[in-house]
Amino acid sequence: MEQRISLVTLGVADIARARTFYERLGWRGQEAEETVFFQAGGLALVLWGRDKLAEDAGVADAGGGFGGLSLAQNVRSRAEVDAILAAAAAAGATLTRPARETFYGGYAGCFTDPDGHVWEIAHNPGFPLADDGTLTVPDFDAG
Amino acid sequence: MEQRISLVTLGVADIARARTFYERLGWRGQEAEETVFFQAGGLALVLWGRDKLAEDAGVADAGGGFGGLSLAQNVRSRAEVDAILAAAAAAGATLTRPARETFYGGYAGCFTDPDGHVWEIAHNPGFPLADDGTLTVPDFDAG
Repeated sequence: MEQRISLVTLGVADIARARTFYERLGWRGQEAEETVFFQAGGLALVLWGRDKLAEDAGVADAGGGFGGLSLAQNVRSRAEVDAILAAAAAAGATLTRPARETFYGGYAGCFTDPDGHVWEIAHNPGFPLADDGTLTVPDFDAG
Repeated sequence: MEQRISLVTLGVADIARARTFYERLGWRGQEAEETVFFQAGGLALVLWGRDKLAEDAGVADAGGGFGGLSLAQNVRSRAEVDAILAAAAAAGATLTRPARETFYGGYAGCFTDPDGHVWEIAHNPGFPLADDGTLTVPDFDAG
């Protein structure tokens, strides 16, 4: 199995509400068959009904709560962290952790989207970010 | 907020068990501070303690179950779907949906990793896949 991810699909209660939230953050997607696809770098972030997602995957959905998974976007400055958290709050997110210094020398805060999916917005000087946003895991042994 | 994802972090009960699972699938990662980082295309897939992930994000963890989110890897043939599902089962995954034809003219099946995170392995002729694995959402209006 190659070491890559093609899609990250968020199960949502209301496609229109979820799409509006991400569009308020400046994202632009396309909808087909009650599914919204956002090109996100080399993969797609997808919004789909949570019930359909569970059924399609063959798993039971206890319904709600933290799913033991988070998404992160690394940005280029602390000011950008603050700006995105403010924009997310304005777009309807819940800020679950204010931005603060992290143990690894960075600066990050977290929010949940309208369906409870966790996002961390982080400035981490140790993880190189290319101009196109591509993130490279550094060689830990070289540090 | 730019339209991209930098990291996908899976909360896990046992780092060593989770790392072994992904390594059995052929992935190679680096560990630091009880966290494992896999370079996955232009982002990182990260394994971290589920309790730490919840606490760090400022959310309550009801503990377990479907998190309303799935990851997918698109591949280049139906045979590759079958091969990866078989490899995942051999590595300790639970096959939650056998591979089958999909409504969009593809072929896909699902498994959960040892912590219940859902993966779909799909062959979808409608979503172009570059040589480096980069996925492009097609222009739906052009179809």
